[in-house]
Amino acid sequence: MRFRANPRSILKLEMEIIQSPHEVQKRVNHWRCEGKSIGFVPTMGALHEGHLSLARAARRDCDVVVASVFVNPTQFGTNEDLNKYPRPLERDCDLLRQCGCDLVFTPEEKDLYFQDGSGAQSWVEVEILGEVWEGTVRPGHLRGVATVVAKLFHIVRPSRAYFGEKDYQQLKVIERLARDLFFDVEIVPIETVRENDGLALSSRNAYLVSDERQAAANISRALFHGVELAKNGERDVARLRAEMQRVCGSQPLIALQYLAIVDAQTLAPLDKISDAPARILIAARVGQTRLIDNAGIN
Amino acid sequence: MRFRANPRSILKLEMEIIQSPHEVQKRVNHWRCEGKSIGFVPTMGALHEGHLSLARAARRDCDVVVASVFVNPTQFGTNEDLNKYPRPLERDCDLLRQCGCDLVFTPEEKDLYFQDGSGAQSWVEVEILGEVWEGTVRPGHLRGVATVVAKLFHIVRPSRAYFGEKDYQQLKVIERLARDLFFDVEIVPIETVRENDGLALSSRNAYLVSDERQAAANISRALFHGVELAKNGERDVARLRAEMQRVCGSQPLIALQYLAIVDAQTLAPLDKISDAPARILIAARVGQTRLIDNAGIN
Repeated sequence: MRFRANPRSILKLEMEIIQSPHEVQKRVNHWRCEGKSIGFVPTMGALHEGHLSLARAARRDCDVVVASVFVNPTQFGTNEDLNKYPRPLERDCDLLRQCGCDLVFTPEEKDLYFQDGSGAQSWVEVEILGEVWEGTVRPGHLRGVATVVAKLFHIVRPSRAYFGEKDYQQLKVIERLARDLFFDVEIVPIETVRENDGLALSSRNAYLVSDERQAAANISRALFHGVELAKNGERDVARLRAEMQRVCGSQPLIALQYLAIVDAQTLAPLDKISDAPARILIAARVGQTRLIDNAGIN
Repeated sequence: MRFRANPRSILKLEMEIIQSPHEVQKRVNHWRCEGKSIGFVPTMGALHEGHLSLARAARRDCDVVVASVFVNPTQFGTNEDLNKYPRPLERDCDLLRQCGCDLVFTPEEKDLYFQDGSGAQSWVEVEILGEVWEGTVRPGHLRGVATVVAKLFHIVRPSRAYFGEKDYQQLKVIERLARDLFFDVEIVPIETVRENDGLALSSRNAYLVSDERQAAANISRALFHGVELAKNGERDVARLRAEMQRVCGSQPLIALQYLAIVDAQTLAPLDKISDAPARILIAARVGQTRLIDNAGIN
């Protein structure tokens, strides 16, 4: 039959959008019983090419692709941008459909966080890895991430889950969590997607006004400059940081929050670069917008 | 063939004892793919009739029964009895075999808690429900319980998990955890098993010397007295508590830690008994030994 010759196009048309956790669990259990591998792409929506590269990797690797779109309130601080965070759900679903996604899970807050008067609440957190850097600047943020990821993993039961390297500390926290708690899932890191001038894609880039947008590119310029110096033999972290701070400092619109060179696994700060993998982590405000980026050494 | 006529007796002989989490995951995934229901009985060993009643309930309800024996260090405080806690593993396995258990998971500390120098560690905890009563007297205890139960659930992937009502707050914490985090498991509470004089079975009863053992029975006497008074119409919590304290106080070897009458779901203390389910919770020291017990009203 002709329509069976190209099953992908049928799948695309048939992408399901489901709000109920228990409905998703039913679908997924059905697929698991058929022996299908499930690729999972958790997102907060406002999708860009970075998210879509995760969905495409999942599509390439797995029998079934599930994405979630949920702006998770527990990972926002009280003075952060929860309310203004963009929520273009219809556009997001179109983009996921075009990537060959099979199911989009779109819970609301009440579906993932019960509110029944007792006020009690279960949390998942990762000590140390979740307490440094972003953990210091955004207390509770990574606890909120770890908790919602645990819920999503239990609902979607993925064989593989895809996370961008752009949120490097988040990636390390989730890898650790999955290992420590014996989640039966492979965490797949996907390289950061960048604009032509190097700026890492982020849903928050939409907040940047024109001169801020230009200034923001200096964050990645500083990163690449640091990587290049290290490649050429500079091992002294103080000198590397000073060089990178100079690049950021040339743009008065950039206010650095931290610029750290750390062990790529433990995220502990280094004095000297060795042959072991290291990571440069940057967090900065550009105007009112907070941006983070990172790059690897070795 | 004759030996197929009584498969249970063969199962008993074939009970497996496995230390490796990944080996257990393999066995369990095999059973899950065959569509078998898995009953799980997590224990710290030193088994008594209370534990065995959980194993027998699992055997009655489920296709496969898995028990775990693990003295979980993260649920012991620094001055508690971790080192002297009894560990009669061979006897425990014999008892589980006699209950028709199919697999006993016997991990060591390093198998469930990784130690790789980073010191980081993932934790699961339940706010409020895990912070009152036992949470106050034994800080960190219920976080240790919740964390190890999350690990065990991921390894054993039970359809049903059996917990004794003896540890009532623990039961409520795990019910809440399973619901909040969308664990795909049914939590089955099993009634407390008691000695003839009413003392709730506990592995820690073995610590009691003879006059302490006699005195300890007054804890359950106080409980039953409270339940009886409530049944006969006493609604005032202050009067109920005073009556129960009088029964405990008649034994100078009993030092009460708390005696509370609480909402059976939220564990919030009550002033008046209503028609809603309530629970009496008692914790006491008898000599050096700490004992807890509880009973339901309505």
